[in-house]
Amino acid sequence: MPFETTTQVRFSHIDAAGIVFYPRYFEMLNSAVEDWCAQALGQDFRTLHLHRGIGVPTVKLDVEFVSPSELGDMLTITLSPREIGRSSCQLHVVFSGDERVRLRANVVLVCMDLHTRRATPWPEEIRARIQEGIAYAI
Amino acid sequence: MPFETTTQVRFSHIDAAGIVFYPRYFEMLNSAVEDWCAQALGQDFRTLHLHRGIGVPTVKLDVEFVSPSELGDMLTITLSPREIGRSSCQLHVVFSGDERVRLRANVVLVCMDLHTRRATPWPEEIRARIQEGIAYAI
Amino acid sequence: MPFETTTQVRFSHIDAAGIVFYPRYFEMLNSAVEDWCAQALGQDFRTLHLHRGIGVPTVKLDVEFVSPSELGDMLTITLSPREIGRSSCQLHVVFSGDERVRLRANVVLVCMDLHTRRATPWPEEIRARIQEGIAYAI
Amino acid sequence: MPFETTTQVRFSHIDAAGIVFYPRYFEMLNSAVEDWCAQALGQDFRTLHLHRGIGVPTVKLDVEFVSPSELGDMLTITLSPREIGRSSCQLHVVFSGDERVRLRANVVLVCMDLHTRRATPWPEEIRARIQEGIAYAI
Repeated sequence: MPFETTTQVRFSHIDAAGIVFYPRYFEMLNSAVEDWCAQALGQDFRTLHLHRGIGVPTVKLDVEFVSPSELGDMLTITLSPREIGRSSCQLHVVFSGDERVRLRANVVLVCMDLHTRRATPWPEEIRARIQEGIAYAI
Repeated sequence: MPFETTTQVRFSHIDAAGIVFYPRYFEMLNSAVEDWCAQALGQDFRTLHLHRGIGVPTVKLDVEFVSPSELGDMLTITLSPREIGRSSCQLHVVFSGDERVRLRANVVLVCMDLHTRRATPWPEEIRARIQEGIAYAI
Repeated sequence: MPFETTTQVRFSHIDAAGIVFYPRYFEMLNSAVEDWCAQALGQDFRTLHLHRGIGVPTVKLDVEFVSPSELGDMLTITLSPREIGRSSCQLHVVFSGDERVRLRANVVLVCMDLHTRRATPWPEEIRARIQEGIAYAI
Repeated sequence: MPFETTTQVRFSHIDAAGIVFYPRYFEMLNSAVEDWCAQALGQDFRTLHLHRGIGVPTVKLDVEFVSPSELGDMLTITLSPREIGRSSCQLHVVFSGDERVRLRANVVLVCMDLHTRRATPWPEEIRARIQEGIAYAI
Protein backbone atom coordinates (compact mmCIF):
# COMPACT_ATOMS: atom_id res chain seq x y z
CA MET A 1 0.00 0.00 0.00
CA PRO A 2 1.64 3.28 -1.04
CA PHE A 3 1.62 6.27 1.28
CA GLU A 4 -1.18 8.68 0.46
CA THR A 5 -1.80 12.30 1.40
CA THR A 6 -4.09 15.02 0.02
CA THR A 7 -3.80 18.67 -0.79
CA GLN A 8 -5.97 21.35 -2.32
CA VAL A 9 -5.03 23.62 -5.21
CA ARG A 10 -4.90 27.12 -3.78
CA PHE A 11 -4.98 30.53 -5.43
CA SER A 12 -1.24 30.86 -4.69
CA HIS A 13 -0.55 27.80 -6.88
CA ILE A 14 -2.31 29.10 -10.00
CA ASP A 15 -0.71 30.94 -12.89
CA ALA A 16 -2.06 33.45 -15.39
CA ALA A 17 -3.42 30.58 -17.52
CA GLY A 18 -5.58 29.41 -14.60
CA ILE A 19 -3.63 26.20 -13.96
CA VAL A 20 -1.05 25.13 -11.39
CA PHE A 21 2.33 26.76 -12.07
CA TYR A 22 4.65 23.75 -12.08
CA PRO A 23 7.15 24.92 -9.41
CA ARG A 24 4.18 24.94 -7.01
CA TYR A 25 3.71 21.19 -7.59
CA PHE A 26 7.18 20.72 -6.11
CA GLU A 27 6.21 22.66 -2.99
CA MET A 28 3.24 20.28 -2.68
CA LEU A 29 5.54 17.31 -3.36
CA ASN A 30 7.97 18.45 -0.69
CA SER A 31 5.12 18.73 1.82
CA ALA A 32 4.03 15.20 0.84
CA VAL A 33 7.56 13.98 1.58
CA GLU A 34 7.28 15.69 4.99
CA ASP A 35 4.00 13.85 5.62
CA TRP A 36 5.57 10.56 4.52
CA CYS A 37 8.55 11.07 6.84
CA ALA A 38 6.29 11.93 9.79
CA GLN A 39 3.57 9.34 9.21
CA ALA A 40 5.25 6.43 7.42
CA LEU A 41 8.82 6.72 8.70
CA GLY A 42 8.01 8.03 12.16
CA GLN A 43 10.40 10.98 11.75
CA ASP A 44 8.93 14.43 11.41
CA PHE A 45 11.02 17.07 9.59
CA ARG A 46 11.48 19.16 12.72
CA THR A 47 13.05 16.24 14.58
CA LEU A 48 15.08 15.19 11.56
CA HIS A 49 16.43 18.67 10.90
CA LEU A 50 16.71 20.23 14.33
CA HIS A 51 17.47 17.28 16.58
CA ARG A 52 19.10 14.69 14.35
CA GLY A 53 20.88 17.11 11.99
CA ILE A 54 19.60 15.21 8.95
CA GLY A 55 18.15 16.64 5.76
CA VAL A 56 16.69 14.77 2.78
CA PRO A 57 17.43 16.93 -0.29
CA THR A 58 16.21 15.88 -3.71
CA VAL A 59 19.05 14.98 -6.06
CA LYS A 60 17.17 13.67 -9.10
CA LEU A 61 13.73 14.25 -10.49
CA ASP A 62 11.93 12.90 -13.57
CA VAL A 63 8.50 14.40 -14.00
CA GLU A 64 5.75 14.10 -16.55
CA PHE A 65 2.96 16.65 -16.29
CA VAL A 66 0.05 14.59 -17.59
CA SER A 67 -2.92 16.93 -17.21
CA PRO A 68 -3.48 20.38 -15.69
CA SER A 69 -4.95 21.18 -12.26
CA GLU A 70 -7.23 24.10 -11.50
CA LEU A 71 -8.14 26.30 -8.55
CA GLY A 72 -9.94 24.30 -5.85
CA ASP A 73 -9.04 20.83 -7.17
CA MET A 74 -8.54 18.26 -4.43
CA LEU A 75 -5.43 16.25 -5.24
CA THR A 76 -4.32 12.90 -3.89
CA ILE A 77 -0.57 12.37 -3.77
CA THR A 78 0.68 8.79 -3.56
CA LEU A 79 4.27 8.10 -2.68
CA SER A 80 5.80 4.64 -3.14
CA PRO A 81 9.39 3.92 -2.19
CA ARG A 82 10.98 1.77 -4.91
CA GLU A 83 14.64 1.38 -4.08
CA ILE A 84 16.93 2.17 -1.21
CA GLY A 85 20.70 2.62 -1.36
CA ARG A 86 23.24 3.27 1.34
CA SER A 87 22.20 6.90 1.60
CA SER A 88 19.65 7.36 -1.18
CA CYS A 89 16.06 6.41 -1.80
CA GLN A 90 13.94 6.39 -4.94
CA LEU A 91 10.25 7.28 -4.71
CA HIS A 92 7.53 6.96 -7.32
CA VAL A 93 5.00 9.76 -6.96
CA VAL A 94 1.60 10.26 -8.57
CA PHE A 95 -0.66 13.31 -8.25
CA SER A 96 -4.25 12.61 -9.20
CA GLY A 97 -7.73 14.02 -8.73
CA ASP A 98 -11.19 13.26 -10.11
CA GLU A 99 -9.79 9.98 -11.48
CA ARG A 100 -7.36 11.86 -13.66
CA VAL A 101 -3.58 11.65 -13.27
CA ARG A 102 -2.02 15.13 -13.05
CA LEU A 103 1.64 14.23 -12.80
CA ARG A 104 3.94 11.26 -12.37
CA ALA A 105 7.42 11.57 -10.95
CA ASN A 106 10.44 9.58 -9.93
CA VAL A 107 12.33 11.29 -7.16
CA VAL A 108 15.68 10.42 -5.64
CA LEU A 109 16.27 11.70 -2.13
CA VAL A 110 19.53 11.58 -0.24
CA CYS A 111 20.10 11.36 3.47
CA MET A 112 22.37 14.32 4.19
CA ASP A 113 24.33 15.24 7.28
CA LEU A 114 23.41 18.91 7.70
CA HIS A 115 26.73 19.77 9.36
CA THR A 116 29.11 18.24 6.82
CA ARG A 117 26.60 18.68 3.96
CA ARG A 118 27.55 15.22 2.74
CA ALA A 119 25.53 12.08 2.14
CA THR A 120 25.37 9.85 5.19
CA PRO A 121 23.93 6.32 5.58
CA TRP A 122 20.24 6.13 6.50
CA PRO A 123 19.78 5.64 10.25
CA GLU A 124 18.80 1.98 10.81
CA GLU A 125 15.20 2.56 11.97
CA ILE A 126 14.50 4.82 8.97
CA ARG A 127 16.04 2.28 6.59
CA ALA A 128 13.85 -0.45 8.08
CA ARG A 129 10.68 1.59 7.54
CA ILE A 130 11.56 2.48 3.95
CA GLN A 131 12.27 -1.20 3.25
CA GLU A 132 8.86 -2.13 4.65
CA GLY A 133 7.33 0.38 2.25
CA ILE A 134 9.22 -1.16 -0.67
CA ALA A 135 8.14 -4.67 0.36
CA TYR A 136 4.47 -3.58 0.42
CA ALA A 137 4.75 -2.19 -3.07
CA ILE A 138 5.92 -5.48 -4.60
CA MET B 1 -17.30 34.00 16.90
CA PRO B 2 -14.50 34.73 14.41
CA PHE B 3 -13.75 32.35 11.55
CA GLU B 4 -10.95 29.94 12.36
CA THR B 5 -8.77 27.73 10.21
CA THR B 6 -5.48 25.92 10.79
CA THR B 7 -2.28 25.38 8.88
CA GLN B 8 1.08 23.78 9.49
CA VAL B 9 4.47 25.39 8.99
CA ARG B 10 6.13 23.49 6.18
CA PHE B 11 9.75 23.25 5.06
CA SER B 12 8.88 25.47 2.08
CA HIS B 13 7.90 28.28 4.48
CA ILE B 14 11.18 28.35 6.41
CA ASP B 15 14.17 30.59 5.76
CA ALA B 16 17.87 30.22 6.41
CA ALA B 17 17.35 31.40 9.99
CA GLY B 18 14.96 28.48 10.63
CA ILE B 19 11.83 30.64 10.92
CA VAL B 20 8.92 31.41 8.59
CA PHE B 21 9.99 33.77 5.79
CA TYR B 22 7.36 36.50 6.04
CA PRO B 23 6.08 36.42 2.41
CA ARG B 24 5.04 32.81 3.14
CA TYR B 25 2.72 34.07 5.91
CA PHE B 26 0.82 35.94 3.21
CA GLU B 27 0.40 32.75 1.17
CA MET B 28 -1.06 31.17 4.31
CA LEU B 29 -3.20 34.26 4.88
CA ASN B 30 -4.51 34.14 1.33
CA SER B 31 -5.45 30.48 1.78
CA ALA B 32 -7.24 31.41 5.01
CA VAL B 33 -9.23 34.02 3.07
CA GLU B 34 -10.11 31.26 0.58
CA ASP B 35 -11.35 29.08 3.45
CA TRP B 36 -13.35 31.98 4.89
CA CYS B 37 -14.99 32.68 1.53
CA ALA B 38 -15.87 29.01 1.03
CA GLN B 39 -16.95 28.19 4.57
CA ALA B 40 -18.24 31.44 6.07
CA LEU B 41 -19.47 33.26 2.96
CA GLY B 42 -20.59 30.21 1.00
CA GLN B 43 -18.54 31.22 -2.03
CA ASP B 44 -15.49 29.19 -2.93
CA PHE B 45 -12.73 30.91 -4.89
CA ARG B 46 -13.28 28.73 -7.97
CA THR B 47 -16.92 29.83 -8.21
CA LEU B 48 -16.08 33.44 -7.42
CA HIS B 49 -13.30 33.65 -9.99
CA LEU B 50 -14.41 31.35 -12.76
CA HIS B 51 -18.20 31.61 -12.67
CA ARG B 52 -18.96 34.99 -11.12
CA GLY B 53 -15.94 36.86 -12.50
CA ILE B 54 -15.14 38.30 -9.08
CA GLY B 55 -11.78 38.59 -7.37
CA VAL B 56 -10.97 39.86 -3.87
CA PRO B 57 -7.53 41.47 -4.09
CA THR B 58 -5.87 42.89 -0.99
CA VAL B 59 -5.51 46.66 -1.15
CA LYS B 60 -4.18 47.44 2.31
CA LEU B 61 -2.27 45.51 4.89
CA ASP B 62 -0.96 46.40 8.36
CA VAL B 63 1.01 43.61 9.93
CA GLU B 64 2.89 43.16 13.14
CA PHE B 65 5.11 40.07 13.35
CA VAL B 66 4.91 39.35 17.05
CA SER B 67 6.92 36.15 17.41
CA PRO B 68 8.58 33.69 15.05
CA SER B 69 7.22 30.34 13.84
CA GLU B 70 9.27 27.23 13.25
CA LEU B 71 9.14 24.11 11.11
CA GLY B 72 6.22 21.88 12.07
CA ASP B 73 4.35 24.47 14.17
CA MET B 74 0.58 24.11 13.99
CA LEU B 75 -0.91 27.59 13.54
CA THR B 76 -4.47 28.73 14.09
CA ILE B 77 -5.58 31.63 11.90
CA THR B 78 -8.58 33.63 13.08
CA LEU B 79 -10.29 36.01 10.72
CA SER B 80 -12.81 38.56 11.98
CA PRO B 81 -14.58 40.93 9.59
CA ARG B 82 -14.65 44.40 11.17
CA GLU B 83 -16.14 46.79 8.62
CA ILE B 84 -17.81 46.56 5.26
CA GLY B 85 -18.03 49.29 2.64
CA ARG B 86 -19.75 49.39 -0.72
CA SER B 87 -17.03 47.24 -2.29
CA SER B 88 -14.44 46.81 0.46
CA CYS B 89 -14.13 44.83 3.66
CA GLN B 90 -11.74 45.08 6.58
CA LEU B 91 -10.60 41.92 8.34
CA HIS B 92 -8.69 41.51 11.56
CA VAL B 93 -6.41 38.48 11.41
CA VAL B 94 -4.40 36.72 14.10
CA PHE B 95 -1.97 33.84 13.64
CA SER B 96 -1.26 31.94 16.83
CA GLY B 97 0.07 28.61 18.04
CA ASP B 98 1.01 27.12 21.41
CA GLU B 99 -0.80 30.05 23.06
CA ARG B 100 1.63 32.49 21.49
CA VAL B 101 0.55 35.13 18.96
CA ARG B 102 2.72 35.00 15.84
CA LEU B 103 1.26 37.88 13.86
CA ARG B 104 -1.60 40.35 13.90
CA ALA B 105 -2.88 41.98 10.75
CA ASN B 106 -5.53 44.31 9.46
CA VAL B 107 -6.37 43.52 5.88
CA VAL B 108 -8.59 45.45 3.46
CA LEU B 109 -10.01 43.40 0.60
CA VAL B 110 -11.89 44.80 -2.36
CA CYS B 111 -14.57 43.13 -4.44
CA MET B 112 -13.22 43.43 -7.98
CA ASP B 113 -14.85 42.77 -11.32
CA LEU B 114 -12.23 40.62 -13.06
CA HIS B 115 -13.24 41.85 -16.53
CA THR B 116 -13.12 45.60 -15.91
CA ARG B 117 -10.51 45.23 -13.11
CA ARG B 118 -12.49 47.80 -11.14
CA ALA B 119 -14.08 47.71 -7.71
CA THR B 120 -17.68 46.55 -7.84
CA PRO B 121 -20.31 46.43 -5.04
CA TRP B 122 -20.42 43.22 -3.01
CA PRO B 123 -23.14 40.86 -4.27
CA GLU B 124 -26.04 41.02 -1.79
CA GLU B 125 -25.77 37.48 -0.37
CA ILE B 126 -22.02 37.95 0.25
CA ARG B 127 -22.62 41.33 1.90
CA ALA B 128 -25.25 39.75 4.15
CA ARG B 129 -22.86 37.03 5.30
CA ILE B 130 -20.02 39.47 5.99
CA GLN B 131 -22.41 41.63 8.02
CA GLU B 132 -23.43 38.60 10.07
CA GLY B 133 -19.74 38.01 10.78
CA ILE B 134 -19.32 41.62 11.91
CA ALA B 135 -22.40 41.40 14.13
CA TYR B 136 -21.03 38.26 15.83
CA ALA B 137 -17.78 40.03 16.60
CA ILE B 138 -19.41 42.85 18.53
CA MET C 1 18.78 60.44 -2.50
CA PRO C 2 16.90 57.25 -1.69
CA PHE C 3 18.33 53.88 -2.66
CA GLU C 4 16.91 52.58 -5.93
CA THR C 5 16.85 49.16 -7.53
CA THR C 6 14.82 47.61 -10.34
CA THR C 7 13.04 44.34 -10.96
CA GLN C 8 10.86 42.84 -13.65
CA VAL C 9 7.46 41.24 -13.14
CA ARG C 10 7.88 37.58 -14.02
CA PHE C 11 5.38 34.87 -14.87
CA SER C 12 5.98 33.37 -11.41
CA HIS C 13 4.69 36.60 -9.80
CA ILE C 14 1.36 36.68 -11.64
CA ASP C 15 -1.94 35.30 -10.40
CA ALA C 16 -5.02 33.99 -12.19
CA ALA C 17 -6.29 37.55 -12.61
CA GLY C 18 -3.15 38.46 -14.57
CA ILE C 19 -1.67 40.75 -11.90
CA VAL C 20 1.08 40.38 -9.31
CA PHE C 21 -0.04 38.14 -6.44
CA TYR C 22 0.74 40.31 -3.42
CA PRO C 23 2.97 37.84 -1.49
CA ARG C 24 5.31 38.02 -4.50
CA TYR C 25 5.75 41.77 -3.93
CA PHE C 26 7.28 40.89 -0.58
CA GLU C 27 9.76 38.54 -2.21
CA MET C 28 10.73 41.46 -4.47
CA LEU C 29 10.85 43.77 -1.45
CA ASN C 30 13.10 41.37 0.43
CA SER C 31 15.47 41.23 -2.54
CA ALA C 32 15.47 45.04 -2.62
CA VAL C 33 16.47 45.05 1.06
CA GLU C 34 19.31 42.64 0.12
CA ASP C 35 20.44 45.07 -2.59
CA TRP C 36 20.25 47.98 -0.17
CA CYS C 37 22.32 46.11 2.44
CA ALA C 38 24.94 45.15 -0.15
CA GLN C 39 25.13 48.44 -2.06
CA ALA C 40 24.16 51.15 0.43
CA LEU C 41 25.28 49.59 3.71
CA GLY C 42 28.26 47.67 2.36
CA GLN C 43 27.05 44.41 3.90
CA ASP C 44 25.80 41.69 1.62
CA PHE C 45 23.35 39.18 3.07
CA ARG C 46 25.79 36.29 2.77
CA THR C 47 28.34 38.10 4.94
CA LEU C 48 25.69 39.32 7.36
CA HIS C 49 24.12 35.90 7.78
CA LEU C 50 27.00 33.49 7.43
CA HIS C 51 29.95 35.43 8.80
CA ARG C 52 28.47 37.98 11.18
CA GLY C 53 25.54 35.86 12.41
CA ILE C 54 23.14 38.77 11.88
CA GLY C 55 19.70 38.67 10.29
CA VAL C 56 17.34 41.57 9.58
CA PRO C 57 13.82 40.17 9.92
CA THR C 58 10.80 42.36 9.23
CA VAL C 59 8.76 43.04 12.36
CA LYS C 60 6.21 45.54 11.06
CA LEU C 61 4.74 46.28 7.69
CA ASP C 62 2.15 48.81 6.51
CA VAL C 63 1.36 48.47 2.84
CA GLU C 64 -0.98 50.15 0.44
CA PHE C 65 -1.40 48.45 -2.93
CA VAL C 66 -2.06 51.47 -5.10
CA SER C 67 -2.32 49.99 -8.59
CA PRO C 68 -1.77 46.56 -10.13
CA SER C 69 1.33 45.31 -11.98
CA GLU C 70 1.30 43.02 -14.98
CA LEU C 71 3.56 40.46 -16.63
CA GLY C 72 6.71 42.08 -17.99
CA ASP C 73 6.36 45.41 -16.15
CA MET C 74 9.68 46.96 -15.18
CA LEU C 75 9.41 48.20 -11.60
CA THR C 76 11.60 50.64 -9.75
CA ILE C 77 11.83 50.11 -6.01
CA THR C 78 12.98 53.04 -3.89
CA LEU C 79 14.01 52.49 -0.32
CA SER C 80 14.47 55.41 2.08
CA PRO C 81 15.54 54.88 5.67
CA ARG C 82 13.48 57.14 7.92
CA GLU C 83 14.35 56.33 11.51
CA ILE C 84 16.89 54.24 13.33
CA GLY C 85 16.58 52.84 16.85
CA ARG C 86 18.99 50.84 18.97
CA SER C 87 18.30 47.69 16.99
CA SER C 88 15.50 48.68 14.60
CA CYS C 89 15.19 50.69 11.42
CA GLN C 90 12.19 52.09 9.58
CA LEU C 91 12.21 52.20 5.79
CA HIS C 92 9.81 53.89 3.43
CA VAL C 93 9.43 51.88 0.24
CA VAL C 94 7.77 52.73 -3.07
CA PHE C 95 7.28 50.42 -6.05
CA SER C 96 6.58 52.27 -9.28
CA GLY C 97 6.66 51.77 -13.03
CA ASP C 98 5.55 53.77 -16.07
CA GLU C 99 5.13 56.81 -13.78
CA ARG C 100 2.50 54.98 -11.79
CA VAL C 101 2.91 54.05 -8.13
CA ARG C 102 2.17 50.37 -7.54
CA LEU C 103 2.62 50.14 -3.80
CA ARG C 104 3.81 52.17 -0.83
CA ALA C 105 5.06 50.57 2.34
CA ASN C 106 6.55 51.35 5.71
CA VAL C 107 8.74 48.55 6.90
CA VAL C 108 10.41 48.07 10.27
CA LEU C 109 13.45 45.80 10.27
CA VAL C 110 15.27 44.56 13.33
CA CYS C 111 18.90 43.64 13.70
CA MET C 112 18.78 40.11 15.08
CA ASP C 113 21.49 37.91 16.52
CA LEU C 114 20.91 34.63 14.66
CA HIS C 115 22.25 32.52 17.53
CA THR C 116 20.18 33.96 20.37
CA ARG C 117 17.34 34.98 18.03
CA ARG C 118 17.09 38.26 19.92
CA ALA C 119 17.36 41.86 18.83
CA THR C 120 20.90 43.17 19.04
CA PRO C 121 22.25 46.72 18.56
CA TRP C 122 23.22 47.65 15.00
CA PRO C 123 26.98 47.25 14.43
CA GLU C 124 28.51 50.75 14.40
CA GLU C 125 29.49 50.89 10.71
CA ILE C 126 25.99 49.77 9.65
CA ARG C 127 24.36 52.32 11.95
CA ALA C 128 26.56 55.04 10.45
CA ARG C 129 25.52 54.15 6.91
CA ILE C 130 21.82 54.03 7.76
CA GLN C 131 22.12 57.43 9.45
CA GLU C 132 23.76 58.85 6.32
CA GLY C 133 20.78 57.56 4.33
CA ILE C 134 18.36 59.24 6.73
CA ALA C 135 20.30 62.51 6.55
CA TYR C 136 20.12 62.47 2.71
CA ALA C 137 16.37 62.05 2.85
CA ILE C 138 15.73 65.14 4.95
CA MET D 1 25.98 29.14 -29.11
CA PRO D 2 23.44 28.36 -26.42
CA PHE D 3 21.33 31.12 -24.90
CA GLU D 4 22.73 32.40 -21.63
CA THR D 5 21.24 34.43 -18.81
CA THR D 6 22.25 35.07 -15.20
CA THR D 7 20.53 35.21 -11.86
CA GLN D 8 21.53 35.64 -8.25
CA VAL D 9 20.58 33.36 -5.38
CA ARG D 10 18.37 35.41 -3.09
CA PHE D 11 17.34 34.95 0.51
CA SER D 12 13.88 33.90 -0.71
CA HIS D 13 15.45 30.92 -2.55
CA ILE D 14 17.26 29.47 0.47
CA ASP D 15 15.99 26.77 2.80
CA ALA D 16 16.69 25.96 6.42
CA ALA D 17 19.82 24.06 5.39
CA GLY D 18 21.26 27.24 3.82
CA ILE D 19 20.97 26.01 0.22
CA VAL D 20 18.54 26.69 -2.63
CA PHE D 21 15.20 24.93 -2.05
CA TYR D 22 14.74 23.04 -5.31
CA PRO D 23 11.29 24.39 -6.29
CA ARG D 24 12.95 27.83 -6.39
CA TYR D 25 15.31 26.58 -9.13
CA PHE D 26 12.23 26.06 -11.27
CA GLU D 27 11.11 29.65 -10.71
CA MET D 28 14.58 30.70 -11.90
CA LEU D 29 14.31 28.26 -14.82
CA ASN D 30 10.93 29.64 -15.80
CA SER D 31 12.35 33.17 -15.78
CA ALA D 32 15.23 31.94 -17.96
CA VAL D 33 12.68 30.56 -20.44
CA GLU D 34 11.01 34.01 -20.40
CA ASP D 35 14.36 35.62 -21.20
CA TRP D 36 15.00 33.09 -23.98
CA CYS D 37 11.58 33.75 -25.52
CA ALA D 38 12.09 37.52 -25.38
CA GLN D 39 15.73 37.66 -26.45
CA ALA D 40 16.30 34.59 -28.63
CA LEU D 41 12.83 34.05 -30.09
CA GLY D 42 11.77 37.69 -30.25
CA GLN D 43 8.57 36.99 -28.33
CA ASP D 44 8.22 38.29 -24.80
CA PHE D 45 5.84 36.46 -22.47
CA ARG D 46 3.48 39.43 -22.22
CA THR D 47 2.99 39.46 -26.01
CA LEU D 48 2.77 35.67 -26.19
CA HIS D 49 0.21 35.41 -23.40
CA LEU D 50 -1.82 38.58 -23.68
CA HIS D 51 -1.77 39.32 -27.41
CA ARG D 52 -1.19 35.99 -29.13
CA GLY D 53 -3.05 33.79 -26.62
CA ILE D 54 -0.15 31.35 -26.46
CA GLY D 55 1.39 29.73 -23.39
CA VAL D 56 4.43 27.44 -23.18
CA PRO D 57 3.77 25.07 -20.28
CA THR D 58 6.35 22.51 -19.24
CA VAL D 59 5.18 18.94 -19.87
CA LYS D 60 8.30 16.97 -19.04
CA LEU D 61 11.30 17.57 -16.84
CA ASP D 62 14.38 15.48 -16.04
CA VAL D 63 16.63 17.14 -13.52
CA GLU D 64 19.83 16.23 -11.79
CA PHE D 65 20.83 18.44 -8.87
CA VAL D 66 24.60 18.20 -9.11
CA SER D 67 25.80 20.54 -6.37
CA PRO D 68 24.15 22.98 -3.96
CA SER D 69 23.91 26.76 -4.33
CA GLU D 70 24.15 29.26 -1.51
CA LEU D 71 22.92 32.73 -0.67
CA GLY D 72 24.49 35.33 -2.97
CA ASP D 73 25.82 32.89 -5.58
CA MET D 74 25.79 34.27 -9.10
CA LEU D 75 24.42 31.58 -11.42
CA THR D 76 24.66 31.33 -15.18
CA ILE D 77 21.81 29.52 -16.86
CA THR D 78 22.41 28.15 -20.35
CA LEU D 79 19.52 27.03 -22.47
CA SER D 80 20.06 25.01 -25.65
CA PRO D 81 17.14 23.91 -27.82
CA ARG D 82 17.71 20.30 -28.90
CA GLU D 83 14.63 19.15 -30.78
CA ILE D 84 11.48 20.69 -32.10
CA GLY D 85 8.22 18.89 -32.84
CA ARG D 86 4.96 20.13 -34.30
CA SER D 87 4.01 21.80 -31.02
CA SER D 88 6.76 20.78 -28.61
CA CYS D 89 10.37 21.71 -27.99
CA GLN D 90 13.10 20.09 -25.95
CA LEU D 91 15.64 22.24 -24.14
CA HIS D 92 18.84 21.27 -22.41
CA VAL D 93 19.49 23.50 -19.42
CA VAL D 94 22.54 23.90 -17.21
CA PHE D 95 22.85 26.05 -14.08
CA SER D 96 26.43 26.77 -13.11
CA GLY D 97 28.47 29.18 -11.03
CA ASP D 98 32.12 29.44 -9.95
CA GLU D 99 32.94 26.79 -12.56
CA ARG D 100 30.75 24.29 -10.77
CA VAL D 101 27.61 22.78 -12.32
CA ARG D 102 24.63 23.13 -10.01
CA LEU D 103 21.95 21.37 -12.03
CA ARG D 104 21.36 19.84 -15.43
CA ALA D 105 17.90 19.48 -16.89
CA ASN D 106 16.04 18.37 -19.98
CA VAL D 107 12.81 20.27 -20.35
CA VAL D 108 9.98 19.71 -22.82
CA LEU D 109 7.78 22.74 -23.47
CA VAL D 110 4.55 22.71 -25.44
CA CYS D 111 3.02 25.52 -27.46
CA MET D 112 -0.48 25.81 -26.00
CA ASP D 113 -3.51 27.73 -27.21
CA LEU D 114 -4.63 29.47 -24.01
CA HIS D 115 -8.29 29.51 -25.08
CA THR D 116 -8.70 25.84 -25.98
CA ARG D 117 -5.94 24.74 -23.55
CA ARG D 118 -4.72 22.37 -26.24
CA ALA D 119 -1.37 21.99 -27.96
CA THR D 120 -1.13 24.07 -31.11
CA PRO D 121 1.61 24.15 -33.80
CA TRP D 122 4.44 26.63 -33.21
CA PRO D 123 3.86 29.87 -35.14
CA GLU D 124 6.23 29.86 -38.14
CA GLU D 125 8.54 32.68 -37.02
CA ILE D 126 8.99 31.08 -33.60
CA ARG D 127 9.67 27.68 -35.15
CA ALA D 128 12.28 29.27 -37.41
CA ARG D 129 14.10 30.85 -34.48
CA ILE D 130 14.08 27.64 -32.43
CA GLN D 131 15.48 25.76 -35.43
CA GLU D 132 18.28 28.31 -35.75
CA GLY D 133 19.09 27.69 -32.09
CA ILE D 134 19.21 23.93 -32.68
CA ALA D 135 21.45 24.38 -35.74
CA TYR D 136 23.90 26.48 -33.69
CA ALA D 137 24.13 23.77 -31.09
CA ILE D 138 25.22 21.05 -33.51
